[in-house]
Amino acid sequence: MRVFREAKLVIASHNPGKVREIAELLAPYAVTVLGAAELGLAEPQETGTTFAANAALKAHAAAQATGLPALADDSGLAVTALGGQPGILSARWAGPDRDFGRAMARVNDELGDDPDRSARFVCALTLAWPDGDAVSVEGKVAGTLVWPPRGSGGFGYDPIFVPQGHDMTFGEMTPAAKHALSHRADALAKLVAACFADAA
Amino acid sequence: MRVFREAKLVIASHNPGKVREIAELLAPYAVTVLGAAELGLAEPQETGTTFAANAALKAHAAAQATGLPALADDSGLAVTALGGQPGILSARWAGPDRDFGRAMARVNDELGDDPDRSARFVCALTLAWPDGDAVSVEGKVAGTLVWPPRGSGGFGYDPIFVPQGHDMTFGEMTPAAKHALSHRADALAKLVAACFADAA
Repeated sequence: MRVFREAKLVIASHNPGKVREIAELLAPYAVTVLGAAELGLAEPQETGTTFAANAALKAHAAAQATGLPALADDSGLAVTALGGQPGILSARWAGPDRDFGRAMARVNDELGDDPDRSARFVCALTLAWPDGDAVSVEGKVAGTLVWPPRGSGGFGYDPIFVPQGHDMTFGEMTPAAKHALSHRADALAKLVAACFADAA
Repeated sequence: MRVFREAKLVIASHNPGKVREIAELLAPYAVTVLGAAELGLAEPQETGTTFAANAALKAHAAAQATGLPALADDSGLAVTALGGQPGILSARWAGPDRDFGRAMARVNDELGDDPDRSARFVCALTLAWPDGDAVSVEGKVAGTLVWPPRGSGGFGYDPIFVPQGHDMTFGEMTPAAKHALSHRADALAKLVAACFADAA
């Protein structure tokens, strides 16, 4: 399998929360992380029907546009009692102004008094090179939804998600505590195991 | 890197020429190949802007729909003097009735008397597992375009493509001769090296 050996990596995301988290998770690796927004990249339409397909779309588009390897994330919340929704529509439930207060309220409304509050966060990552090679992995974390939202850390649906075996929501945890548990950390660990050279 | 160890593999293509070629190329591996058409799979829209993105879209959709690992191919002809066209539109230039006689004539018309007849075939392959993991590779073969078309082997633009260092078009070659040279064989060799267990 191809090994990642480049000095620069584009994070193919316009979501500052994701870019920050990925940069933090990649801190042990000798790589300069560039955000898609600072490179002036357009956001491709996320027309895939799975997290993995959307991550691949974004990674390949960014790698081709920049000539650099690009890492894209597509992730979201899959609620068991809602048949996996909002799923790949997790960001769209927040509307054009990315109002996740509204998105969390919608999840809570649609759950109503259903006793099954289980959910999981899923994170698909694709690392694509400009020549078309790519590696994709998927990470997950299981948990339970709470209401009202708690904490101001993280982003997205973090304030209503309590990971299995814990009491605090992702929104209440420090970044280090979340990184030890999260779907994104799980996916990145798989990606690093698959194709990153040893940490410096 | 994840190793492919499953007994069945879905070929996420409705193109019988591609399914046949991939089945032939995979003959040394102990794997039962199933075509997307025989499984009744819908063809997803190819909305990606690169071969690699389209291969990923198709592979992830088929893996999710079937619960089996799925291999998708997106490939085409990139003509130097046409700025890489038809590229990801290679199949669309053949129209809804997949008339590659028309598509080849269009390439020849657009080239006109341009002395640069160089082109390459590109093949992106994605192998996706139902859990979202995937590996993508890209294969290429350089060559020269001729007119009129010659030979009835292969499919697509094969009758006007003479691979570098050879005299016959892909359409004139035996399947074995084409498989020793082709972009699809190049891509599949990379994929096998990346993630197939040793041939039985």
